[in-house]
This record gives sequence, C-alpha cells and structure tokens, in this order.
Amino acid sequence: MKKYVYLFKDADGDNKALFGGKGANLAKMTSLGMPVPQGFTITTEACIKYYDDGEQITDEIVKQIFDALSETEKIAGKKFGDAENPFLVSVRSGARASMPGMMDTILNLGLNDKSVEGLAKLTSNPRFAYDCYRRFIQMYSDVVMGVGKVAFERMIDELKEKKNVVKDTELTADDLKELIASFKAFYKKDRGEEFPQDPNEQLIGAVKAVFRSWNNPRAIVYRKMNDIPSSWGTAVNVQSMVFGNMGDDSGTGVAFTRNPATGEKALYGEYLMNAQGEDVVAGIRTPQPIGDLAKTNKAVYDQFVDIANKLENYYKDMQDMEFTIERGKLYMLQTRNGKRTAKASLKIAIDLVKEGMITEKEALLKLEPRQLDSLLHPQFDAAALKKVKHIATGLAASPGAACGKVAFSAEEAVERTGKGEKVVLVRMETSPEDIEGMAVSEGILTARGGMTSHAAVVARGMGACCVAGCSAIDIDLDKKILKIAGKTFTADDYISIDGVTGYIYGEAIKTAPAAITDNFETIMNWADKYRALKIRTNADTPKDAKQAVAFGAEGIGLCRTEHMFFEEDRIMAMREMILSNSKAEREAALQKLLPMQKKDFIGLYEAMGNRPVTIRFLDPPLHEFLPHKEIEIAQLAKEKKMKVEDLKKLIDSLSEFNPMLGHRGCRLSVTFPEIAEMQTQAVIEAAIEVSKKGNFVKPEIMIPLVGDVKELKFVKDIVVKKADEIIKKAGAKIEYSIGTMIEVPRAAITADEIAKEAEFFSFGTNDLTQMTYGFSRDDAGKFLDDYYTNKIFESDPFSRIDRNGVGKLVKMAIDLGRTTRPDIKLGICGEHGGDPSTVEFCHDIGLTYVSCSPFRVPVARLAAAQANIKNPR
Amino acid sequence: MKKYVYLFKDADGDNKALFGGKGANLAKMTSLGMPVPQGFTITTEACIKYYDDGEQITDEIVKQIFDALSETEKIAGKKFGDAENPFLVSVRSGARASMPGMMDTILNLGLNDKSVEGLAKLTSNPRFAYDCYRRFIQMYSDVVMGVGKVAFERMIDELKEKKNVVKDTELTADDLKELIASFKAFYKKDRGEEFPQDPNEQLIGAVKAVFRSWNNPRAIVYRKMNDIPSSWGTAVNVQSMVFGNMGDDSGTGVAFTRNPATGEKALYGEYLMNAQGEDVVAGIRTPQPIGDLAKTNKAVYDQFVDIANKLENYYKDMQDMEFTIERGKLYMLQTRNGKRTAKASLKIAIDLVKEGMITEKEALLKLEPRQLDSLLHPQFDAAALKKVKHIATGLAASPGAACGKVAFSAEEAVERTGKGEKVVLVRMETSPEDIEGMAVSEGILTARGGMTSHAAVVARGMGACCVAGCSAIDIDLDKKILKIAGKTFTADDYISIDGVTGYIYGEAIKTAPAAITDNFETIMNWADKYRALKIRTNADTPKDAKQAVAFGAEGIGLCRTEHMFFEEDRIMAMREMILSNSKAEREAALQKLLPMQKKDFIGLYEAMGNRPVTIRFLDPPLHEFLPHKEIEIAQLAKEKKMKVEDLKKLIDSLSEFNPMLGHRGCRLSVTFPEIAEMQTQAVIEAAIEVSKKGNFVKPEIMIPLVGDVKELKFVKDIVVKKADEIIKKAGAKIEYSIGTMIEVPRAAITADEIAKEAEFFSFGTNDLTQMTYGFSRDDAGKFLDDYYTNKIFESDPFSRIDRNGVGKLVKMAIDLGRTTRPDIKLGICGEHGGDPSTVEFCHDIGLTYVSCSPFRVPVARLAAAQANIKNPR
Repeated sequence: MKKYVYLFKDADGDNKALFGGKGANLAKMTSLGMPVPQGFTITTEACIKYYDDGEQITDEIVKQIFDALSETEKIAGKKFGDAENPFLVSVRSGARASMPGMMDTILNLGLNDKSVEGLAKLTSNPRFAYDCYRRFIQMYSDVVMGVGKVAFERMIDELKEKKNVVKDTELTADDLKELIASFKAFYKKDRGEEFPQDPNEQLIGAVKAVFRSWNNPRAIVYRKMNDIPSSWGTAVNVQSMVFGNMGDDSGTGVAFTRNPATGEKALYGEYLMNAQGEDVVAGIRTPQPIGDLAKTNKAVYDQFVDIANKLENYYKDMQDMEFTIERGKLYMLQTRNGKRTAKASLKIAIDLVKEGMITEKEALLKLEPRQLDSLLHPQFDAAALKKVKHIATGLAASPGAACGKVAFSAEEAVERTGKGEKVVLVRMETSPEDIEGMAVSEGILTARGGMTSHAAVVARGMGACCVAGCSAIDIDLDKKILKIAGKTFTADDYISIDGVTGYIYGEAIKTAPAAITDNFETIMNWADKYRALKIRTNADTPKDAKQAVAFGAEGIGLCRTEHMFFEEDRIMAMREMILSNSKAEREAALQKLLPMQKKDFIGLYEAMGNRPVTIRFLDPPLHEFLPHKEIEIAQLAKEKKMKVEDLKKLIDSLSEFNPMLGHRGCRLSVTFPEIAEMQTQAVIEAAIEVSKKGNFVKPEIMIPLVGDVKELKFVKDIVVKKADEIIKKAGAKIEYSIGTMIEVPRAAITADEIAKEAEFFSFGTNDLTQMTYGFSRDDAGKFLDDYYTNKIFESDPFSRIDRNGVGKLVKMAIDLGRTTRPDIKLGICGEHGGDPSTVEFCHDIGLTYVSCSPFRVPVARLAAAQANIKNPR
Repeated sequence: MKKYVYLFKDADGDNKALFGGKGANLAKMTSLGMPVPQGFTITTEACIKYYDDGEQITDEIVKQIFDALSETEKIAGKKFGDAENPFLVSVRSGARASMPGMMDTILNLGLNDKSVEGLAKLTSNPRFAYDCYRRFIQMYSDVVMGVGKVAFERMIDELKEKKNVVKDTELTADDLKELIASFKAFYKKDRGEEFPQDPNEQLIGAVKAVFRSWNNPRAIVYRKMNDIPSSWGTAVNVQSMVFGNMGDDSGTGVAFTRNPATGEKALYGEYLMNAQGEDVVAGIRTPQPIGDLAKTNKAVYDQFVDIANKLENYYKDMQDMEFTIERGKLYMLQTRNGKRTAKASLKIAIDLVKEGMITEKEALLKLEPRQLDSLLHPQFDAAALKKVKHIATGLAASPGAACGKVAFSAEEAVERTGKGEKVVLVRMETSPEDIEGMAVSEGILTARGGMTSHAAVVARGMGACCVAGCSAIDIDLDKKILKIAGKTFTADDYISIDGVTGYIYGEAIKTAPAAITDNFETIMNWADKYRALKIRTNADTPKDAKQAVAFGAEGIGLCRTEHMFFEEDRIMAMREMILSNSKAEREAALQKLLPMQKKDFIGLYEAMGNRPVTIRFLDPPLHEFLPHKEIEIAQLAKEKKMKVEDLKKLIDSLSEFNPMLGHRGCRLSVTFPEIAEMQTQAVIEAAIEVSKKGNFVKPEIMIPLVGDVKELKFVKDIVVKKADEIIKKAGAKIEYSIGTMIEVPRAAITADEIAKEAEFFSFGTNDLTQMTYGFSRDDAGKFLDDYYTNKIFESDPFSRIDRNGVGKLVKMAIDLGRTTRPDIKLGICGEHGGDPSTVEFCHDIGLTYVSCSPFRVPVARLAAAQANIKNPR
C-alpha cells in the first residue's frame, strides 16, 4: 500500500511537491532538531486521489491517518478527547506553492464537552477554554459542514445585547457556556444530529474540508493569477496545538530574518505574551517589537535568533517564521521564504550574493519578474492605502496607481491637464482617437473590454495605469456623471485606481513615484549577463522607443504604423484615402500621408541608434479610421462635399461582420498596392536620410496577416520594386529585409512555403491565439470566467501562451521555416512577449528575440535570464 | 537544348499536359492518317517559361519556331509573304483543359500588302482577300498591340455612312482597300511605326499575345470556376490556313458524333458551302444539316463519316469536330470531346457501355459530378433563353432557374404565394426569420453576401434557386421599388434569375422542370457500386431528410438544432430563455422548448428509418435570436414587461465585436449547462419513443466548436449524466454516442487529446477554413476578387477545400485522433461536403463519410465513386 501520511520526523523536508511547502518546512525544521510541535502531513497525492475517487477518502488513508495520530499522541504524551490532558491539533492546508489565506484551517480540533474541561483545568482559564470551544464549534460547523455562519454571529450579538455588553471579550465563561449550548442546539436542529463529540470524526471531517477548499473560488482565482496548476493539489498538516496564552511565561509571535519592506538585514517582527496568534491579528493589544523579547526572556530570544539564523542559512533566503512560547518553551510553528516588496527583493538578492550565501544566478532565480513592474510605476502610499476601502473592482489591465479628478472624454482630459489639473480618464471603452487624452491622464478606467482591449494594450505600451472592463461603473456623458456602485461622481470629484489590483477607490489617495534604484540596475546587469534571448520592444513613437532603450531594449520588434494615423492632422488624410473613388485619388491622399510617415520613421531610427527596427505595414481594417459620431460624420461629409446620408451609406458599406477576420493586414495591400508603396517609400527614404548622419539603419519590413506564401510574394514584389527604385535613384546603400508576422494558423502550418519569401518570422501571438482557439479577445471576456470557474482554463491564454495548442503551432512553424531557411530570424511581438512564462517558452523553443511594450522590457530581461539559467542554450 | 516546338507529325497525341488539348488532338489525327492542315505546336512548357522569364520568349524558342515554320512551309509548298501562293496560318491557344473562347486567336496571319494580292488571285476573289486583310489588321492591332479596337469600328461606320450602305458586306473591294489604308495610317500614328509587313514578326507577336491571353481576366475567372490551375499554361498551335470559300467545291462546318442535347446516337451538325467559319457563326446565310452533304458530295461525306466514327472509337467519347472543304478536299481542323447537356451526358455514358466501348467505371469517370445539379433543378427553356439578355450578374449561389414577380419581404412572399402568385424574393440579405418566405418563393435574390451567406446556404439546403451578392440591385423597401441597372421594378413586375450562371433577367422566362430519369438512376446505382465513402446529408427538418433519402443519403451527418428555433412559435420561448435573469427562469423557458425540440427529433428519426442521425447542439451566439427591428423589440419588451430602452440596452450588451469568434458552440453550454441538458433530454426521449415503434435509433450527439478536450469533457459529462438518467428511468435500451466537430484549429492540433473523449470527429470545414485563414466568409467576399485577379487564390476556399492548409490540419487531426482511438468515426459536414474535388480529398484521406445538403447528395455519390475508381481503398 502506498504511503499517504507521514510523521513530520519521517517526511522529506526537500519534497515540497509531495508534502507542500508548510509540511516540507515542518519536516525540515524537525530534522534540523528545532523545537516543532509534532504532527503529520497527509500528502498532496492523497488530495489528488481524493478528487480522482469522486471526493472520497479511502479507508486505507483513514487508517494511515489514525496510525499517524496515535504516534503523535505518543510523542505528545496526550490523548484525543482526554478530560485531564487533552490532545488538540490544528488542521491546515499546505500547497506546493504558498497560497496564503486561500484555503481553510481548523484550530483546536479535539475539543468536545469533556476535553474542554481538561483544557480549562490545564490553562487555569475556563473562559479561554470555553472561548476555544465555541470558536471551534463555529469554525467546524461553517468550514466542514456549511452550517450556521450567519446564525452563530447573530446569536453572539443577541447574547451581547441581553448581557448589555459591547465586546466579545466582555462575555464571561458562563456566557460562553450558554453560547456553546445554543450553538450545539442550532447545529442539531439544522443537521438532525448532535455536534460531533468524537475527535476522530472531527479530524476526518476537517481533512476533507481542507481538500475541498483546494477548489474553492478564491483558491481557483489565486491559482490562475499565480500560474499554479490545479493538478498539484494540497497537502494537509495535522499538528499538536501549543498555547501561547498559558500565562505570562507564554506568548506568540511572527518574525522575518530581514525587513520585508526594505530588505535591511535585521530580525524584524513582533510578539505578544500570554496570547494566541489570533490576538496578534485582532489588534486588541499592541504587540511588542521582537527585540524586546531579549529584555524579558533572553534565553528564548537567543534560541529564536539562533534558529532564525540557521533557517536563513539553510534556505538561503529571508525567512518568515511563526513561533509560540508555551510555559517558557519555544515552539516553531512555521517557516517559509518571506513575501517581500519588490524593492526589498532586489536588496535581499544582492545582499545574499554579497554575503557569499548564493551566486548571481541563484539570486536571479529568486526574483519574481512580474514584481519588477511595481518599481517602474507609481504606487499608492502604503499607509494611505490601509485607511481606505475600494468601492469596485475591474481588470488590472496596466500596473501603477493613479489619482485624479474624473474626465469624461479625451478632449476634456487634454484641456484640463493643460490647465494643470490631474485627471483620470473614464470611458465606456477607448478608441484610437483617445490616445492623446490617455497620454496626459494619470490613469484610465473603462467599463468594457478585457486585458487586451484597446485601453489595456495602449496603456501598457505607455506605462500608464489602467483598470479596464469594470462593469460596476455607469457613465452618463450628457450629464457628465459617473456612478460607481451607487455613488455619484462629477468632474470635480477625485477617484483613485490601482492597476495592479484592479481596485477603484472613491477618493484621493496619495501616490509614491516609481523607484528605479542602483539595485535595479545591478540586477538588470546580471540578467543581461546570463540571458541568451534578445529583448526588443513594441514602440510606435520616438518617445516610447527612447523609454524602451532606457529600459534596455535592443531593438524595435514591432512598430505598428497604423497608430501613427490616428493623430488629428493625419486622420483626415487617412479618411480621404479610404473614401477615394479611384487609384489616382487614393494616391493623392497617400502623398499627403507620406511626409508625416517618413518623419515618424526618422524619429524612430534616430531614437534607436544602430539598433534594428521592425516596421509592420498597415494592419487594421480601414473602417476603423472612419468616424462613428454624428458630428464627425457631418464634418467629414462637409469636407468631402458629400451628403451626410451618402457618407453614412458608404461608411456602412465598409463595416464588417467580423472585423478581426476582415479586410486587413496584407489583404489591404493586395487590394490597394499603393498603400504598401507609400509605406515603403517612407521607410526607405527615412533610412537613407538617417544613414547619412552616420547611423546604421537596416529596416526590417514586416507584412502582417499572411496566410499564404503567394500573398506575401505579391506584397513583397511591390515593396522590393519600390524600395530598389528609391535606393537606386538616391545612389544610397541601404540594406533592408522583408519578413512576415506568423499570426494566422495557416501561416504556421505552411511556414516552410512562407519561409521561401520571408527573411524573418515574428509570431503575432495575439491573433494567433484568437484564431487558433476561435475566440476574439474582445468577446471572450464575457465567457472566460465560466471557463476558469469550471477549471476548463487555468490561465488567460491572452496573457500566458497556450503551450499545448498555440505553442505547438509556433513550434511547428519554427521547424517548417528552418527546413527552408535554416538561419531564419525568429521573434515574437504579441502581448505575450512580456509574460515571464511565455519568455521562458520562447527561450526554450529557440527564438532569437521577444518584443514587448517598453515597461515590460525589464521583466522580459529577467525572465530571459532565468530561462537560460534553468535551461542553458 | 530542350525542345519547345513540335510539328504535328512529331508531337505525342496522348500528352495533353505538354501539347494542350487541341495540339494533342491535331497530332493524334495526323498520326491516324487523317487529313489535317499541317503546322506545329509550341508547348505549354514554353508558356510557363515565358512567364518565368518575365514575359519574354527566348531567342532559342524563337529559333525553334522558325525552324518548325520552314518545315511546315515545305509540307505546304507555300512561302510566308509570297505574292503568288502565300502561306497563311492561324495562331490559336490550346490549354490542357478546354477553355472555349477564353483566350485569343489570330487568323490569316502572313497577310501583308504583297501577299494579299496573292490571296486575291488564288481565290479569284479580291473582295474576300481585302476583307481578310482588313480583318487581320483589326485583329492583330487589337489582340497583339492593343491598338484601335474602337477607332477601327468607328472608321468602318463612317465609311458605310459615306458610301450610304448599311451592311459590312455591301462594302466593295475598293472600299475595303480604302479602309485598309486608313487602318494602317491610324496604326502608324498610334504606334509611331508601320503596321508590320514581316510575317515572321507578325508570328512572334501573335504567339506572345496568345501566351499573354492565358492571364486575361476572363480566362482567370473561367479557370477558377473550373478548377484549372494557372500553373498549367497554354500551348500555341500554328496551323496552315485552308479556305472554305474558294468556290462552290469548298465549304466549312462543325459536327458532333452524337446529339449534344439529347445524347442520341447520330451524326449531328451543319455546314455551309463557299464560306469561312465566321460565316456560319454570323448567321447571314443559313447553314445546312450535315446529312445534306451526302446528297451533294457523297465522297467527302463518306470520308467525313468514316473519320468521325474512327475518332469516336479512338477517343471512346462523343466528338465535336470542325472541318473545311477546300476545292473538294476535306480537312479536319479540330476534334475534341464534345460539350453536352447533363441529360445527354448520362445517355451517352450509358450507351457507350451498352455498345461495349467502355466499362461502367470508365463511364462514371466521364461524367462531371457538378453537372448533375442541373437535372435536379428547374432550368430555363433553352430557346426562350436565347432571346433574352441578362441585365445584371450576381453570385451563382444555388442552382436552378426561377421566374416570378418581385416580393420584398418574407411575409409578403408567404402572403402572395398563398393567393397563387409566383414570386422571387428580393432582399438586401436574408436572416433566419425569412426561412418560410424563402421556402415558398421560386427563387431568392440578394444584394449582399457571398457563396456561404445565409441565403446561399439555406437555398442550397432547400434546393431552391438563389443568386446572391448582386451589388447592382438597389431596394427601396418603403416605396417597394427594386432598381436593377437603372431599370425599375415593382411588385407587379417579373424578374428571372439563373442560379447556375448568376444572371438576372428583367422579364419572365419560361422554365422547364427538373428531369430525374431512368438514366439518372442507372448512373447513381453504378456510383453506389463503386464508391467506398458513405454519403450523408445535412438536414434539419423531416422534409429535407426525406428529400435527401430520396437522393440516396445514408444518414444525417449534421442536424443544426438552432434552425429549429427560428420558427415563429419557438423564437419567443428562445428569447425568453436568452433574456432570463436566473437559472430558474432559463430552465422554465427551456421547458417550453423541450416538447417542440423533441417533436423535431421524432420527425427526423422517423424520416431516416434505421439510418444514423448526428445532432449538433446549439451553435450560434444567442444574440442571433434577438430581434433587431424596432417593432419586434417593442413587442418583445411588452411581453417581457420591460422598458423598450432597457431591452435595447440588454440586446446591445449581448452584441459582439466578432460574433464568429464569440460566445457560441460548446461555450454556450459551459455557461448555461441547462441548454445542453434540455437538448439531451429531447434527443434521448425522442429516441426512446421512436425505438418503441421498431426503428433502430442510435443518436450521435455532436458538441460544436470544441478547442480543448476539457471543454468537451465538461459538456459530455452533462450530456451523459442526463441521458443515462432518462434511459434508466424509462427502462429503455438506447445506445448513443458523443463526438465533436473539428472546426477550430486548436481542436485539429490537439486531436489526440480530444479523441480521448470524442467517439467521432466531424470536420466543420466552413469554420475551420475561416479560422485557419483568419477571414470570415461574410467579409471575405469584398476582397477575394482581388485575390483571384492577382492569382493569389485560384479557387474559392469556401467551395473547394484548401488542401495545403486546411487539408493539412484535417490530416493532422485524423492522424492524431487515430493514435488515441484507432477506430474513430470520421466525417465532414461543412459546405465542402458537396464539392467533387473535396469529396475526392475526403476519400483519399480516409474519412468514413461526407455530409452535404440534400440536393448535393447525388453529386457526392458520383464524386465518391470517381475517387474510389481513381484511387481504390
């Protein structure tokens, strides 16, 4: 029979997969001879088996549990349910990765009508014993049986009213006895049976409840956010209770080996004498700094410091420890690598290297790439944040914290910020015309759209804070009123939004600026030293490009030329082009765009110096550039000397059923080759001009949305003809290359053919994900929540690449492409490029570079280093 | 040096790929000792080389042409440009597959100012000679040089006016001489050089022109319609001219070995003495039936009959021959397998078998599956059709011919046909609510939408005539006025539409009914004897199912359950379901739909007898069922007791950016499991009920739009639970299977995983094509024409499966699926299922069955037989 239950002293402290983090650490501390209240761990395999067996614990496992229990009783010298010296345990979850507060815990298990008397005697504190028992009944009824959560609280309130007291602590031992009787009566009425008095029955109930809690909604959400697979399961730790409230020689506390906020090397923590863990949290009494313990109980303090040092040395990382002192004896309840701020994480990693404890590579592996984000963006002041409560939640679309008065339109945002106001732009959704207003706002809040909606993508590109898709907000544009969860805001009211949590606050909160420090630079230098993957950026403007270079970008992997066409002076020429009746008219309009486009490229080349620049030709369907508002249509009709009605008809005729699958990408150039010609001219003439100043400019022209090599060939022929003509005429020496996006499944499948014409592939994993799954990012938001809830999906395929499906296509394309062109340059330029897990995937499959928005460049650099350290090229 | 030019006597009459159809047949007739005016063929490889070399003929090929020319001159005993006995040639295209009239031809090449005199002397007919010359100048200038097409016609008109004559034939030899002078002057002015007098120069110019004409727009369109690859190229045939107008002992004619309209075995054709081919076509004189030749020139007639018999015996098919008699000597100019009506093709195939000339298998291979269509649908009366001209053209969306008065809405169509009127339903586009109106109309004409638009798909399913996407029509619904190409029609006016050609006529045209004969049955029986692939049908109603069974369907491959929900009594319950605020409300609405859905399935099972029935669960996004018209919204709001404004908001909130990539297919059941439960209940309860009557009913439940095995598992669990519950409760014995559509690229890529849960795969090649290419069928119509013009695409990927891309995915899915489940049942149920080329592909890759609309079942049966004869399983 397989072993599913291990005593702490028999478990493998290095096997977190089997024993969970908590279980493994308890085993390790035990094996290191530290004072740990003994107990046993039920393995993660038992949890997996529990689900495989249809949410049942087999008799064999039950037997193993009771065997381990009796061993533990022997060690403790106590008996379950004993009226003199009762054995009590805590039952806690413990997954492979830390999931703090996500799953259930039951304390003081083993209490019943008999053993509560034993506890009262033992502690000489009947009030404490009855309070433990009534809490246990409450916790067990709720967590294990789903009974009485609201009713029990109401009964407490009623009793307090009757006794004319305000605080729970004012209830006497007798009051609590009365409460226990009422709880048990309610339980019996609800369940049709007595509250279980048999501690064995209590134990199995609690173990099942912990297994079940692995799949409660908040755990599922947490796993999705942290890329933890549901297949891991949780272990369960059953541990002897020790009590910090057995008198003045008892106490309890938590401590870190280093300061988790700053990283400073010094024991950091607090404790309370004659108290249980809950009292520390409840804030009824003020805990003391850990250092004070040295004054009152030097021996215990020294023992604890010694243990803390040993643990840090053993785990080679800052430890977060819980301890209890029971009648003068120190017990270690838990140790784990401590959570820390981004700033602290850098300092600790660097200090550990300086202290000779770890290597640079190990230091890099300890960092969470995603956490770097918070260093690059403003954050809310931690103290200020503690005092407020959010009033709604949206999608955490782009990190940072923003506070400002409400602005209802991009124009308004531009105007008011011009006068020195700080605003948060609030929109149903944003569109390309809003870009200027987005750029000047402190942050952007939208009611619709997902993680890859326009607002989200553009905000991430700008490094601006954005909360998207908050359905709780209601905007009345006419009256200029914003309603959030029943509260009304006007243009004079402040709101604050947090792009990391997605929280929306109905008031002003102080923000602290971004904090790029020397430590940041040190870590980035290490990352560059150890990575193999190049990191490029997605940038459309010189400003973004410069920002990205400052963050370490080694080139532009994606310049979306269409973003340049939405600016006010250009959109009219663009519309003129779209509404042209003939090639000649179209060419005339394009000639107006040419100098502007050329200027854009000059700016980009100059910003990038000798770094490569990949320019993607026009991609979106043309109707995206047409006006939708009545007033704009009227204006355009006037300029085009058309009837409004006729223009509307024309606009209508250009609309599409499924724009994502419409007339866009290279299809535009097939229909209107003159667009590709104009863009080629701008790319090449700009390159010639900047080259003259000494920069080495080698533009990479990227043709989007190719599905068939003949499409690429057709557009490539146009580009080459035009480019060579210009180069010859100018007598210049410009090298350029032509490649394609691989973003349509057919392109991946036929990549061997496409590589005949393409000098490079850039994987557009946004579109590739949409088409491979057959759902659009704009529409999927409505139903993906059901997919997470039902565990069909465990992560957002638009944030983290789907390795089994989309990833398989990418690999297929690489293999096929290399059969035709072994040295083909390979990159990725979808939103995935900044996701650490995807960066690792890109490293593993052998891409040349990843390209991501400027603010994700540091994240990608670190992730690339980690990938190469784990799996060197 | 490779040989690109062959004398007829040296060419291989069996190699159509190299010599084209015409060249090969001329070589064959030559080798059979038949009297053929000699000449030479420039191979298709020369044409391909011409394009590869950037539209240039290499010097080497020019040399080969002139070598062959001088050989031919020797055989003819004449010289190019000779003033006494000039050698004249025709230069004609000749592709591997017949493309009649699609490419350019030049006659009488070799004429110049000198040789025209020789021709005049030789024919003793100066008027004829000058007429030949002026025609040659016209033809050469236009076809080879692109000069004077309109100007020359105007000059003829001016001359006729000046001479005060009406017909061209009234112009005298001198008039024609004057015209020649004017033509040449115009040519010189336009081109800056004399009209070429050197016959060698003329010849190379003409050859190039024929090569060029391979890519003229009408040839490209014809190839696309007939699945002819552009890579084949055309051969060029240079042949000595013979003249049928050299006196009363000369003549010209065309004849078929059998009657091309009826198939009757008898020489069929006509001829004209003292005439050239053009005169027969021009209709100035009435040709005589071929039989009359026996009376006037028995020897030549007997010789011709003898040749005709030999040719038919050689080619084992009905021949279409052109001949000329020059001064009593018979010359064969061409023979080819004759085009014939569908009716004739069946009779001829069966007769050839009866006559022992070919086997049943060979007979089947001679038939064009697509042609069967015309036997199953009404056609326009051929004589009536000759007298009218179409006024606009749309997409030939569903075959048949229809004539009726204009109806502007489905309701109107229902009402007026109820009164006995015949109507053609004319709409901008159709929607599911129009189905009843479509069913009662003679035909459907739409202004928007492509070959797979709603109108097209539904019409093909019904076997109704449909012309779709005719942008030339303009509908004013308020005034009930239809405008087509400037002509106005009201509800009292007749129009006629042809679903085979896409032509629209502004008048009533007599139609002839469908003609299913004994011959048809014979051929179908032969087809069934030799095919391996099963043929199922896509049918949603008992009526369709019965029709399909009558056409030979062996099961239902696709029942789209959503089509049942659009009927008037159901749509309200459906809308109620969609607008429900809770699961309870939704279940109540579904309970209203249950009995109706159950009744549908009972009807289908009964219609299909013991044949298998595959039922696809609800697929389209729910918003498709919601009303869009103001009046309907108002009505629904009233019933739901909602404010119109609120309902509009709700409808708006359900709308999607890209419905094709939205909340549909299995995603609906993930969000609303109760929908799958209701459909399961209907499927299983109906099966139990019909089984009781003795039918063997084994429903195949098909879950659509699966992209991940977990999606399928989730829905399957719901279905199995519900189904087993019902079966157990009823104490019945019903077997059912559960499978999935493979229509999302990810499903194909991960088919090994999906096959763990799916008992069968049905390839939904419509969606698979859309997602693999990344364009939607509704939007692609706007730009695909540019793809054909630019030869990026050569066939419509929604009609004929894209073997390189979509086909590769299908094969991958089959291979992966079989690794997990070796005996997995495999079918296809997209629109492609009725396309002969796709049927062949499905046979070759080993599918179990194809499923197509009822009227395509015979086509699929024949195509499946041909596929198995060519490549037996």
